[in-house]
Amino acid sequence: MSTPMVITAAMVGAETTREQTPHLPITAEEIAEDAARCREAGAAMVHLHVRTPDGKPSQDAELFRAAIRAIRKRTDVLIQTSTGGAVGMTVDQRCGPLTLTGEDRPDMATLTTGTVNFGEEVFWNPRPLVRDIARRIRAIGLRPELECFDVGMIDEARYLAKEGLVDLPAHFDFVLGVPGTLQPRPEVLDFMIASLPEGSTWTVAGVGRHQLAYVDEAAKRGGNARVGLEDNIYVSKGVLAKGNWELVAEAAKRARAHGREPATPEQARKLLRLS
Amino acid sequence: MSTPMVITAAMVGAETTREQTPHLPITAEEIAEDAARCREAGAAMVHLHVRTPDGKPSQDAELFRAAIRAIRKRTDVLIQTSTGGAVGMTVDQRCGPLTLTGEDRPDMATLTTGTVNFGEEVFWNPRPLVRDIARRIRAIGLRPELECFDVGMIDEARYLAKEGLVDLPAHFDFVLGVPGTLQPRPEVLDFMIASLPEGSTWTVAGVGRHQLAYVDEAAKRGGNARVGLEDNIYVSKGVLAKGNWELVAEAAKRARAHGREPATPEQARKLLRLS
Repeated sequence: MSTPMVITAAMVGAETTREQTPHLPITAEEIAEDAARCREAGAAMVHLHVRTPDGKPSQDAELFRAAIRAIRKRTDVLIQTSTGGAVGMTVDQRCGPLTLTGEDRPDMATLTTGTVNFGEEVFWNPRPLVRDIARRIRAIGLRPELECFDVGMIDEARYLAKEGLVDLPAHFDFVLGVPGTLQPRPEVLDFMIASLPEGSTWTVAGVGRHQLAYVDEAAKRGGNARVGLEDNIYVSKGVLAKGNWELVAEAAKRARAHGREPATPEQARKLLRLS
Repeated sequence: MSTPMVITAAMVGAETTREQTPHLPITAEEIAEDAARCREAGAAMVHLHVRTPDGKPSQDAELFRAAIRAIRKRTDVLIQTSTGGAVGMTVDQRCGPLTLTGEDRPDMATLTTGTVNFGEEVFWNPRPLVRDIARRIRAIGLRPELECFDVGMIDEARYLAKEGLVDLPAHFDFVLGVPGTLQPRPEVLDFMIASLPEGSTWTVAGVGRHQLAYVDEAAKRGGNARVGLEDNIYVSKGVLAKGNWELVAEAAKRARAHGREPATPEQARKLLRLS
């Protein structure tokens, strides 16, 4: 039997607006309801950003606490908090969710290992900041998902491991298709996989129109996939997804078409070596 | 007969100091003398930065004018001016050499197409700035060398071409081995070459200990190479190069060992389609 596929729902993000889609969840309750439906549809994990009540991106610990509690009241889906936040945030702002410990602690946190253009702006991750976030993730006992927007960011994971800041093998997320940086091609995905440290696991997050196509590419190659309104709002050309759950359902359908069952949270915990 | 190999001497840079090597040229006369020896040793082009008299990196137009005039008095080597400058410079500062027209105009200018970590700092090239520099290069009738520190920067060249800001095919420079970004492996070079727009030409600049090894890799693959004190100060392990010319001589020797003659400036002009 083939390895189950971990589907992660990137539910909220920092860029998508209610003007673009009325289906973007914003409050803790909206996020929790959509998360529960994502879990039913086949998601093992949610990638979590939060918003202020008026929809602005935030990394505020109390907003994360509320969302995490609301999600956990409804479902056992794993919760991965972003440390990317939004362009322009300080490191302390970005690390809000890493102050949550005990029963509010997330299950995983992201760590972006380099700086890239992000549309017209710059997603600012200089080395000192990356090391700082890596230390904070480690300090609360979490394992990072290493977000790579280009090939060199995989090399940087090796460097961080040499510095003792991350453990290898690790779990990687290839974010492909952000305007201004690496664009998806099947050969790009193959090359990134071939460039990974031995024994590592990976997820691919295709942005925009590439999202669902790269669920297929990931499924074929034994990898995992991220879908959701953070990266793409359409379930098919011009048709808005009615919630994150609908993108997850479509991803699960595609995974099964390639002989892959969506992983449960417990399977994902084992596959991604989460404690 | 195989295609001649264009050897570019990155003579000065913005990072190398006289403390690291006493052989770094700083004044216009020092640069011109080393450039003439580089030409004799096999360089077809110099990649030019300038310094203030006390050795600080500068993009000052008058310093460029003095260096360009001094070089041209001594030799016919092609002159490619940097628009990267040093970390922290504004776009107007970086574009100093692009204000030189008429007989002081350089033969080529670099254009870096994305933002990356650069050691502990960030080499800041957001999209609006890249477009701005591309327009200025075009306005004085030059062809850019597209500096790519990672694979996604090749994709960005395609985007700039769609916007009408650069022409394809183009000439690319793969800068491999800057700490914090893409590290050189032969497979990385193969993948970058395979990712180029049809008909493009390329140079590889290996940083530090990778510099001379990647002359061999470039020679084997029919490409071109950049060497010089900007990227590497050693001609062999622990032995300082006595000038840029010594690194060029070593590169020329390696090119010939692979059956490639160093290109003359006139051959390079044709190979890189310079006007």
